[in-house]
Amino acid sequence: MAELDKVTQAILKYIDEAGFKQEGAFNLRHNGMALCHGDSEHIKIVKKKDKPGIDIYIDSETNGEEVHIPVVLDASGFTDKVYNDFHIADGAKVVIIAGCGIHNDGHADSQHDGVHSFFVGKGANVTYRENHYGAGDGEGARILNPVTEIFIDDDSVFTLDTSQIRGVDSTKRETYVELGKNSKLFVMEKLMTHGNQMAESNMEVRLNGEGSSAQIISRSVAKENSGQIFHPAAVGNSKCNAHIQCDSIIMDKAQVRSIPEINAKHLDAAIIHEAAIGRINDEQLIKLRTMGMKAEEAENVIIEAFLN
Amino acid sequence: MAELDKVTQAILKYIDEAGFKQEGAFNLRHNGMALCHGDSEHIKIVKKKDKPGIDIYIDSETNGEEVHIPVVLDASGFTDKVYNDFHIADGAKVVIIAGCGIHNDGHADSQHDGVHSFFVGKGANVTYRENHYGAGDGEGARILNPVTEIFIDDDSVFTLDTSQIRGVDSTKRETYVELGKNSKLFVMEKLMTHGNQMAESNMEVRLNGEGSSAQIISRSVAKENSGQIFHPAAVGNSKCNAHIQCDSIIMDKAQVRSIPEINAKHLDAAIIHEAAIGRINDEQLIKLRTMGMKAEEAENVIIEAFLN
Repeated sequence: MAELDKVTQAILKYIDEAGFKQEGAFNLRHNGMALCHGDSEHIKIVKKKDKPGIDIYIDSETNGEEVHIPVVLDASGFTDKVYNDFHIADGAKVVIIAGCGIHNDGHADSQHDGVHSFFVGKGANVTYRENHYGAGDGEGARILNPVTEIFIDDDSVFTLDTSQIRGVDSTKRETYVELGKNSKLFVMEKLMTHGNQMAESNMEVRLNGEGSSAQIISRSVAKENSGQIFHPAAVGNSKCNAHIQCDSIIMDKAQVRSIPEINAKHLDAAIIHEAAIGRINDEQLIKLRTMGMKAEEAENVIIEAFLN
Repeated sequence: MAELDKVTQAILKYIDEAGFKQEGAFNLRHNGMALCHGDSEHIKIVKKKDKPGIDIYIDSETNGEEVHIPVVLDASGFTDKVYNDFHIADGAKVVIIAGCGIHNDGHADSQHDGVHSFFVGKGANVTYRENHYGAGDGEGARILNPVTEIFIDDDSVFTLDTSQIRGVDSTKRETYVELGKNSKLFVMEKLMTHGNQMAESNMEVRLNGEGSSAQIISRSVAKENSGQIFHPAAVGNSKCNAHIQCDSIIMDKAQVRSIPEINAKHLDAAIIHEAAIGRINDEQLIKLRTMGMKAEEAENVIIEAFLN
């Protein structure tokens, strides 16, 4: 079993809440190299030969197993680009726990660009969790630019659960999803920015298959001088249902821009969007403060409740 | 009093529902020329000297008066570009009825591009109604590209009521609004497209003044092979409230794309957006059909109710 240093262990606690163990199927990428790796009976992880990254093969017998593939960067000035492909067989049920943490104590920027592609067979059920986190005292920025492509075949369910809670100076997320017949997508995106952080999230969901559906929920809090831009788009190419909901809280001098797009190209496409941006709920704040909480404590309680 | 031919009279019925009369303040533009024109005690219309168009001066004593400025185009192959500026004094209360109708029996396209600018003083109340309509049996297209700029000073109310019900082959609307302190904007946009028509509506509302508010409601029906694109944007630059609501019905092979944008640049900006695209309500349809209505009749009843 590989020894993990303290910085790596600390980061893993944030990005892998379920607890990272060197058991079953797992792959820990550390400063661009696989630090440790394991396969299970149903899940095989194979290093790519033509470019950095791994192929993850999840067979159709997989029944609720977890695969953990965290990424830790603690070298300042390092840029890591990685391509991970997930091959999910018909009928597989799997929980994939990814995530990236950057600890940067230096002057130079550290950056991780993860390109994740999911090829989901028929009748599968996939949950993909991705936590992003930054730490360290250096002036160098912590930058995360994930690209996620998801191709969902008929009768499958895909749950995409992403979270960026703190320490990431700059992020640009690109997410692209295609849905087959009777397939379902659930997206829950959580984002908090502070300081001078910038976050941008672009998402395009193409409901191609008859009876497909998508539910996209985005919750964000922007503090201090930070800025956020959201551009989720749902394109209805068949008889389908989509519901996008974006809610943001702004604080201090923060700015949030939300540009959802709904695009109905089929008579039986039903697409709904709701978005709201506003300040923290004053009534809740007063209630908590009269219970004896300090302003900051009360704010944190409300923000946490809002994001969870 | 100027004689109006039958085509002009027929078009006026559509674009000026209140009834066009050569009384009070009015200006009828016909194929690029003022056909008739009148002033009232409080409202003066002056022909521009440097470019086509008129300046409309509405004094602060104006109290609920209507001014009618319709545009009729019945020459095929004619492109008319006009600049109309509305100077609305502090405290004025006025109802402006504009609108453009194109009757095209020819092979060449007919086009009207109206650039309307509103300079609204303090404490004023302005209602601006604009109906767009196309008719005629020619193959030449009926094209309307209005540009509307509205600058609203403190404590004023502006109601923008636009409607494009039928016969316009191509339209691209550009609307820009700036709101001062405690000013209010109400927008009601109605749009129906059919055949191979294309309609695009871009709107940017800047809530600059403290206490300003905007309510934007857009209702549209897209039939047959027509297409519609909406891009309304609300930018909160101060303590303000904005609510955007876009609802569309698609029928046949029509496509609707809705890209609302909410942009909060101030801690106390509260902005909400809702959008929905879907097919005609089946339950209502069945109810009306069981009452003996034909499918088309029933659809028309539902569409009219939805747009009104």
